[in-house]
Amino acid sequence: MTEPAAPLPAPRLGEPFLLTPGPLTTDFATKEAMLRDWGSWDSDFRAMTRTLCDRLLVLAGDRAGEYACVPMQGSGSFAVEAMLGSLVPKDGKVLVLANGAYGLRAAETLRYLGRAHTVIDKGDYLPPRGAEVAAALDADPAITHVVAIHCETSSGILNPLAEIAEAVHVRGRKLLIDSMSAFGAIPLDVGEIPCAALVSSANKCIEGVPGFGFVIARRDALEAAQGNSHSLALDLHAQWAYMEKTGQWRYTPPTHAVAAFLKALEIHAAEGGVAGRGARYARNRDVMVAGMRGLGFETLLDDRWLSPIIVTFFCPADPAFVFQTFYDLMKARGFIIYPGKLTVVDSFRIGVIGRMDEHVMARVVQAAADALAEMGVESAAPPAAALAERAKLAA
Amino acid sequence: MTEPAAPLPAPRLGEPFLLTPGPLTTDFATKEAMLRDWGSWDSDFRAMTRTLCDRLLVLAGDRAGEYACVPMQGSGSFAVEAMLGSLVPKDGKVLVLANGAYGLRAAETLRYLGRAHTVIDKGDYLPPRGAEVAAALDADPAITHVVAIHCETSSGILNPLAEIAEAVHVRGRKLLIDSMSAFGAIPLDVGEIPCAALVSSANKCIEGVPGFGFVIARRDALEAAQGNSHSLALDLHAQWAYMEKTGQWRYTPPTHAVAAFLKALEIHAAEGGVAGRGARYARNRDVMVAGMRGLGFETLLDDRWLSPIIVTFFCPADPAFVFQTFYDLMKARGFIIYPGKLTVVDSFRIGVIGRMDEHVMARVVQAAADALAEMGVESAAPPAAALAERAKLAA
Ligand SMILES: Cc1ncc(COP(=O)(O)O)c(C=O)c1O
Ligand SMILES: Cc1ncc(COP(=O)(O)O)c(C=O)c1O
Repeated sequence: MTEPAAPLPAPRLGEPFLLTPGPLTTDFATKEAMLRDWGSWDSDFRAMTRTLCDRLLVLAGDRAGEYACVPMQGSGSFAVEAMLGSLVPKDGKVLVLANGAYGLRAAETLRYLGRAHTVIDKGDYLPPRGAEVAAALDADPAITHVVAIHCETSSGILNPLAEIAEAVHVRGRKLLIDSMSAFGAIPLDVGEIPCAALVSSANKCIEGVPGFGFVIARRDALEAAQGNSHSLALDLHAQWAYMEKTGQWRYTPPTHAVAAFLKALEIHAAEGGVAGRGARYARNRDVMVAGMRGLGFETLLDDRWLSPIIVTFFCPADPAFVFQTFYDLMKARGFIIYPGKLTVVDSFRIGVIGRMDEHVMARVVQAAADALAEMGVESAAPPAAALAERAKLAA
Repeated sequence: MTEPAAPLPAPRLGEPFLLTPGPLTTDFATKEAMLRDWGSWDSDFRAMTRTLCDRLLVLAGDRAGEYACVPMQGSGSFAVEAMLGSLVPKDGKVLVLANGAYGLRAAETLRYLGRAHTVIDKGDYLPPRGAEVAAALDADPAITHVVAIHCETSSGILNPLAEIAEAVHVRGRKLLIDSMSAFGAIPLDVGEIPCAALVSSANKCIEGVPGFGFVIARRDALEAAQGNSHSLALDLHAQWAYMEKTGQWRYTPPTHAVAAFLKALEIHAAEGGVAGRGARYARNRDVMVAGMRGLGFETLLDDRWLSPIIVTFFCPADPAFVFQTFYDLMKARGFIIYPGKLTVVDSFRIGVIGRMDEHVMARVVQAAADALAEMGVESAAPPAAALAERAKLAA
């Protein structure tokens, strides 16, 4: 994992950088891979699908061949639902560890599916800890599966996956991981984090374009999944079995997004894989957070929980600060930022994933400084309520 | 609707023409529209989504504003399942008109969903007729919805939608149309074909790239759909309500496929819309079928039922004919053809949709002639069993 020799180039068609958690700014070569058409039945495309799955299994650390990779058309939520609906048997019971929108969405999915579930809801950003997972599992032997969110993108918190996995594993339950926004940049090795399955998608840290997600699941879990699914389209077992037999996707695959993803995987490998990608994102975060703090902004989270994916900042208390204006001023300077998702206080988010480096991050900070000046915001300090919120986290 | 002035160009990167029912050969400009990244939350992308929906509603002939267009991530089957799971209430009962793989898939979807249904199965290619639909509805007042396949792509038959719609309408039942492979090239005007909803996808006759489907549904049907869906991701009501409120897709949209689709819609309009597109495809079919018949091939269907979408040919009886070899020889000449889907006799299919014209079709016929010669096939005539099959259709 080496420092990049030269700054990464700007988007070639002049569009803004996407400081969002996907779709994100991708390499031009990734998009160029979409300039031709493939027949989905043809052997050339079947070989592409196989390469995609093989490379993802290597990234997930499946040295023993115990896992299979099953791509699924649609956005990441479709792959999450396919995982839940297919791998949790109809008489299973799920413990969902929620601390933001994506944990709650997993619970909502289970509600639609009519699968028994219980939720540990930590609110907007407090991490679920191994000890409380252990206690919940000890208290309820009916629980068969635990759903954990790796990076909860709604606050940007990096949840303590290792201690959660340990608590689940020693109690003989099955772990299902939503690693949507983390996989490819934050290590997740199935040899170290025992899990029945994990899910991610094309347009996150691998830096592809949106169009499909993928579930990396234990083969024994997939075998046992026949007949579980509530949905034909989202039947992970059927998709897997058909692919094993024919090398094809069951229904029309997003051929261009697959081609782009293969190019993105090459670029990922050339950057040094998960370690190299994660290092660049960590530098992005560090430069951006230090710069924003220098302007007076405060992060929701303590450094300890700050992911190298996306960071939540409190909106300044100064009444001259209006988020939509700030957004427009940042966009005019070439940066698309992201609104916040906290329920209690106003916030916004800046993503640090995608094809950009610390040089870009320095310009993001400069753009924020200019935008504040243009709005006449004198201090970027958050309201007292925000700091009180944050104090709860430290407690 | 005018004759094209000049032949359409070949795929610029030299890939084969896709003589398949989608993914298909798209215009280079359509693919070039994918060379930039969009933020899915940003107003620029929201405007793109709105344009997409507005233009599709115009194509469907919704002059009274009674319909809404709801795009859905995933392949066409995902949109079909979203339509069935959301628009058929839990206590509804569906009559499925099947004459091939896609009708049977609709029935299989309903089985997964646990929705009551009954099937009129006409086998591989016989069309369901208005009179038998009428009889089935009269016999079973519990039936609330009828599912019809517009062009059954597995044989290429163009089903008699007008007489089916009429039979359903006068009996006060609701029609759901799978117009996946027909919409955009074969007229389907909701003012003339009364229906609760129709479904199609990006990579068929509008000539976009795969990544999403869309349901065009009556607003009153969407309003009544709340709470019906078996799936969160495929909840058409939720997708619609969220889009109405925010202008955004509920979950990450396939931004690049959407951009490509907008370019494809422009090209579609420039060609003269549904009439122009349909006329080109009809010429493609006529040139290709005449040429193939000239070589001794026989079509499964009588001219009356031949769609301008895809055509099924019987495999020659001559033992020198091996489909995989024929496929490879055609591919070496720049044409990807499609295997057949009949249960009784061997067949293959040649699609006539996508960015290609009658000049290309003439070359397809020449390539087939060369391939037969190279294989040493003396006659392309089908086996007697195939002709006996076909005789059933005439009866
Ligand atoms: C942790 C997590 N889970 C699930 C999703 C849902 O993915 P999608 O928007 O592709 O459906 C996201 C999207 O950002 C996410 O970050
Ligand atoms: C009539 C019909 N219905 C449904 C489908 C399924 O679409 P997809 O393969 O995109 O899931 C197709 C695909 O060709 C089709 O032709």
